[in-house]
Amino acid sequence: MNTAPRSAPSRTGALDIGRLVDPRAIAIIGASNDPKSISGQPMRFLMQHGYRGELYPVNPKYTEIDGVACHGSIAALPVGPDLALILVAARRVPEMLRQCGEKGVRFAIVYSSGFAEAGEAGAALQRECADIAKAFGIRVIGPNCQGFVSTGANVYAGFGAPFGVGYRRGGLSLISQSGGFGCALLLMADELGIGLRHFLTTGNEADVSLLDLVDACIDDPQTSLIATYIEGLKDAHRLVEVANRALDAGKPLLAWKVGNTADGAKAAASHTANLGGASALYRTAFRQTGVIEVTDVADLGDYAQAFEAGRLPRGNRIAVVTLSGGAGILITDACAERGMSVPALSAATLERLKPIVPAFASLNNPIDLTAGILAEPKIFADALQIIADDPNIDAVAIMAAAASGGVAQAMASAIVRVYGTTDKPMMLAWNARHDMAREAYETIRAHGVPLYATPVRCGRAFAALSDYAQARRTRAAARDAQPRELARYDVDHARALLAAHQGKPGDLTEHAAQALLRDYGIATPKSALAHNRDEACAIARAIGFPLVIKVQSPDIPHKTEAGAVRVGIRDEAALAEAFDAIVGNARRHVPHARIDGVLVQEEIRDAIEMIVGIENDASFGPALMCGLGGIYAEVLKDVTFRLAPLTHDAAHAMIRELRAFAILDGARGKPPADIEALVETLVALSAMALDQRASLRELDINPLFVLPAGKGVRAGDALARLLPCVTGAAGTAESADAAGLAAALHENEHGAPAVVDG
Amino acid sequence: MNTAPRSAPSRTGALDIGRLVDPRAIAIIGASNDPKSISGQPMRFLMQHGYRGELYPVNPKYTEIDGVACHGSIAALPVGPDLALILVAARRVPEMLRQCGEKGVRFAIVYSSGFAEAGEAGAALQRECADIAKAFGIRVIGPNCQGFVSTGANVYAGFGAPFGVGYRRGGLSLISQSGGFGCALLLMADELGIGLRHFLTTGNEADVSLLDLVDACIDDPQTSLIATYIEGLKDAHRLVEVANRALDAGKPLLAWKVGNTADGAKAAASHTANLGGASALYRTAFRQTGVIEVTDVADLGDYAQAFEAGRLPRGNRIAVVTLSGGAGILITDACAERGMSVPALSAATLERLKPIVPAFASLNNPIDLTAGILAEPKIFADALQIIADDPNIDAVAIMAAAASGGVAQAMASAIVRVYGTTDKPMMLAWNARHDMAREAYETIRAHGVPLYATPVRCGRAFAALSDYAQARRTRAAARDAQPRELARYDVDHARALLAAHQGKPGDLTEHAAQALLRDYGIATPKSALAHNRDEACAIARAIGFPLVIKVQSPDIPHKTEAGAVRVGIRDEAALAEAFDAIVGNARRHVPHARIDGVLVQEEIRDAIEMIVGIENDASFGPALMCGLGGIYAEVLKDVTFRLAPLTHDAAHAMIRELRAFAILDGARGKPPADIEALVETLVALSAMALDQRASLRELDINPLFVLPAGKGVRAGDALARLLPCVTGAAGTAESADAAGLAAALHENEHGAPAVVDG
Repeated sequence: MNTAPRSAPSRTGALDIGRLVDPRAIAIIGASNDPKSISGQPMRFLMQHGYRGELYPVNPKYTEIDGVACHGSIAALPVGPDLALILVAARRVPEMLRQCGEKGVRFAIVYSSGFAEAGEAGAALQRECADIAKAFGIRVIGPNCQGFVSTGANVYAGFGAPFGVGYRRGGLSLISQSGGFGCALLLMADELGIGLRHFLTTGNEADVSLLDLVDACIDDPQTSLIATYIEGLKDAHRLVEVANRALDAGKPLLAWKVGNTADGAKAAASHTANLGGASALYRTAFRQTGVIEVTDVADLGDYAQAFEAGRLPRGNRIAVVTLSGGAGILITDACAERGMSVPALSAATLERLKPIVPAFASLNNPIDLTAGILAEPKIFADALQIIADDPNIDAVAIMAAAASGGVAQAMASAIVRVYGTTDKPMMLAWNARHDMAREAYETIRAHGVPLYATPVRCGRAFAALSDYAQARRTRAAARDAQPRELARYDVDHARALLAAHQGKPGDLTEHAAQALLRDYGIATPKSALAHNRDEACAIARAIGFPLVIKVQSPDIPHKTEAGAVRVGIRDEAALAEAFDAIVGNARRHVPHARIDGVLVQEEIRDAIEMIVGIENDASFGPALMCGLGGIYAEVLKDVTFRLAPLTHDAAHAMIRELRAFAILDGARGKPPADIEALVETLVALSAMALDQRASLRELDINPLFVLPAGKGVRAGDALARLLPCVTGAAGTAESADAAGLAAALHENEHGAPAVVDG
Repeated sequence: MNTAPRSAPSRTGALDIGRLVDPRAIAIIGASNDPKSISGQPMRFLMQHGYRGELYPVNPKYTEIDGVACHGSIAALPVGPDLALILVAARRVPEMLRQCGEKGVRFAIVYSSGFAEAGEAGAALQRECADIAKAFGIRVIGPNCQGFVSTGANVYAGFGAPFGVGYRRGGLSLISQSGGFGCALLLMADELGIGLRHFLTTGNEADVSLLDLVDACIDDPQTSLIATYIEGLKDAHRLVEVANRALDAGKPLLAWKVGNTADGAKAAASHTANLGGASALYRTAFRQTGVIEVTDVADLGDYAQAFEAGRLPRGNRIAVVTLSGGAGILITDACAERGMSVPALSAATLERLKPIVPAFASLNNPIDLTAGILAEPKIFADALQIIADDPNIDAVAIMAAAASGGVAQAMASAIVRVYGTTDKPMMLAWNARHDMAREAYETIRAHGVPLYATPVRCGRAFAALSDYAQARRTRAAARDAQPRELARYDVDHARALLAAHQGKPGDLTEHAAQALLRDYGIATPKSALAHNRDEACAIARAIGFPLVIKVQSPDIPHKTEAGAVRVGIRDEAALAEAFDAIVGNARRHVPHARIDGVLVQEEIRDAIEMIVGIENDASFGPALMCGLGGIYAEVLKDVTFRLAPLTHDAAHAMIRELRAFAILDGARGKPPADIEALVETLVALSAMALDQRASLRELDINPLFVLPAGKGVRAGDALARLLPCVTGAAGTAESADAAGLAAALHENEHGAPAVVDG
């Protein structure tokens, strides 16, 4: 995007790749004089492509390689080079890095394999490399990577045939965790005429990560588009921040995340040993921040073409213009499936079109001008202009017929003429065989109109462009929105409560979890803990029937399976019978379970059961979940995720993504549910997730009863899991246990564990 | 598939296209001497490609065209030609067809537009053409089509640049409802080197349909693969039969069905006016019969390559061999997402591989031999051979690295050598740029190894091959299966019951629908119809509490919304109160509703609520539906379909496709449900759907209570909609009303409508 603001790389801690991509001198450690070997290739590629800085091969076996003086050791080099390429066996890499550090090298690329991807011994070697890099302040790329290309200074520092190709300069920076696959993408982009800025492979990422490099490319004025190939991000928690920077900078970020099935994830783990968060969280992060997801090699080129054209649609309304009805149906399907709208043309546009188009043309959108119009290219051009000018239309897709020769050329001329008069995106799918419309293709490409081989690919690219434009609008709206005051939460109280439980065996009991929820303003059903039948009856009289009762034990997380729950209790006799029954069941289910009591709770009716929760992902950090509750949550997987923090608008959007939204919204004559209260609950959980991230691993409210509009929500059952106690925090936990716990359980008299009489 | 049995085209009523694709003489009616005009092109293309039969242009304006004598009228032709190409304006087409009929023409292609796609007047013209065709026994293709190509006799009878291309002969027959899009597919297939048998466009299908032509191509010995582009099938009810014939003949049938979104379907309707059944039923029919669904132009070529290689996998276990881990992850994702398995190699295979592969190779499947192996092509070949020979593996996918020149050629040689030693399918994804591995590509292609540009496309093609092989196995198993005796249904009784209701306003009441279900052995809860409170209490005493009560009215199909249902009634007092309340609600909801009584029914507990049903689709005929019940059915759309008739095995498969299957199978500690009883219910509904297809439009059982295993099912609520009464059948209905209805309602005393006292 040409109008993007550029920011200088001055942020604290940010990686400055200036001397990586434009090094004054490069050492090639372990350089070979066999041009076919891996260690023989990088220097030759550097020379072949005209790199102008100094080259220092280092290898005691040679005095010169290809006419360049070879040095016996790193220490013997005349200067400390900006960049070292390390091509020695894995076990020798730490020593080479140390010598680089002593010589003042800034960047090192480690090509060698045999590190974390090869088992525990390799992982230890990799940790050693990371430690050395840190000690000396060298930034290390790799190990187990294939190197990089930077077209600005002709740095082709890698091995393999793709480094022998000379790439056209341009705005694409491509960053890949896989060398081989990164090369395939690079070649594909080049074949499509997309110019390259940087191509970087990161391998095992002992030090510099893919996100570090994305971040650096956002700050690179020559980069206009960033594409990534991701197997797993160790620093996934930074993804949202980095992606938002790219969004703000107007530099589209394409991501191809692989390893999404169980088998695929296993394969990814054994490839570059990059383990990241759950697939669902990648998708979530991408969608939250306008990252364009790529799912095959062709997508990269297709989407890059769309973005390189430099036009974003103002809305999602597309006109589809065809000369053949069949193609129009396809592009309409492809766009409609991806959330774009193919609306009717405005009345004024139809007025202007009708007199000029052929008799059998169809002016419903998709607009089929019919092959007959090819006889008069002028009319085709006029019709296209009228359609492009329609204020109801944000973008135009044109499906060109299999025309050839002069007819094809006349069409192409008409298209580029209209393209020059509008700032709306226009894209073209042209099904001709290349040799039938060579000249026309060249006209189209010369004017920068994105051109696709099939309507489906055109539709997909359009949807990518539209999604990105929408993400920019959403981001701008969020920036402009009045900050909304958050509800007041009792953060300290909640922290004390969690500290009191951290390090104890088992999960937080429901009773304690409910206290935690109340600290964040999440209503729970009226309830109290009973230790015997008589207490239960007394509580029942205070709450009123019908009731639900549940055994409370940290050793029985799944109460239903244990027979430790009874619902629909309507009178005291039933209560007494049920009390004995569920305690008996619990004891049979887990013979030595610690039983803290029986929770006596009002029964919530006429509510929709949802599940909401917190997942403190090891890679991404806290994420929120919302979905349909009960056993359906698990089986039907109608759930959505967002990474914290969550705004009210984002919570609304999250709920609307659910297929179950129709149920909340009043399907089949049911009253609409209290969606506002559900939103508040999600926002509160987001705050809790961030406030308590040091101790809270996971929290599920299932079911969350969502009552009819205006009546709020009730947390029916809550399950919380804590992170292991951090050393040194135990003292705090103990004191909180004494001081805070009684208060934490403020609605009940019985804070301490007790034996049940049942 | 080379071993496919061939059947001769001798079936009664089947279309014999022998003289269409190999005509002794062709009349070109409305031929123009302007070679650029649509009506000038077909004759020139026929001459250009060397068609050897007689050509008879017909146009009173000329005496000759391009040196061929031109005739003033059809009547004036020296013989009755086998084929007439009609290129005159729409309004003159009926007269031309009539003259063709009088001259004894067998086939006519109508190119002209302006028929059903252009409104009601055009539709009338089209009907006239169909009538004339029928009267004279001419088979008409079109109108609004682009013609056809048959390579056997060099018949290139169409207009547009793609008819100027000479196509290599081969086994692909391509049949398209869209001319323009059909041409695009044709060009793509040709570019991939796939040889052509026939290319046929069908347009509006006034007479000959796409399925007629598919059927004819199944009988064509030179056709080995059939591909179709479908906007909508008017004769969709034949799809399963025709597709099964293709499956039996071993001729893979590819289908690209467009118009799947609401907007897309609208566009399809206005293109060739081919309206067909619901998208879901196309998918269902495809899946039931091994039709391979295509979703973009590239799929056709990709899948055709896979099938033309002539190898089917024996199972779904694939070995993925790569030189770059990244590509392996991708293909693993692509295969696993589509139901293929990427299993571990056998111990014996690992034993043999370990000593020969490079140190950093990963022998988990996907197997990463690493780029290092390229240094020794012999080892690559040996490793590949060992993998291909593994008995745990049914197919091998190879992801070649971006190798070039001699290294690429050595790899290609190794691959074709192994390919020659095995009958397992092998496919290749090769990411090199074409100019880097030209010779290697040629080697691969020359040996017929399918070659793909990206791993995802390779994985998709593999999955298509595997799905097809699975469909062949399923079909063979169904043929070999012992026929299972069907339960005995009271078909006549049910027919009388439906006849009694047909033609009456409103839907069948639940009470009558339940009687219908019992005729097909589908259990319903104990129930009886009460006309006042006292009757209700008497019934309640017989059935026992808890109970459900529901107002019975043909005017109130959605009882819950009307407040006309009450559940959980536990005693007589509650029953009396509820009776009055729901009758009052019903009267308020629909003031003049006819109320037949109140159904008093046992309440079913501990069951899983499903929805099952019949949809008698106007295009496809009867289809069965099964899904999760309650409001979830509508909102979550977890439903599957099958076209009737349904075998027990197919019903089992249908249930297993549901996401909700886990719930039936005993998720979260629930007892497994009575899946056998659910299967029996679906098979019974299939029988009902076929038996009663003349009167039954739609039937839903929602909920169908599926009790724990061994306890059967109960139809909780049933809604039936009837087709309009066919003229002449009213008498039957009346007599059935008198004779059969009392018997039909055999479980209750009150068969006739009655006024409620409430």
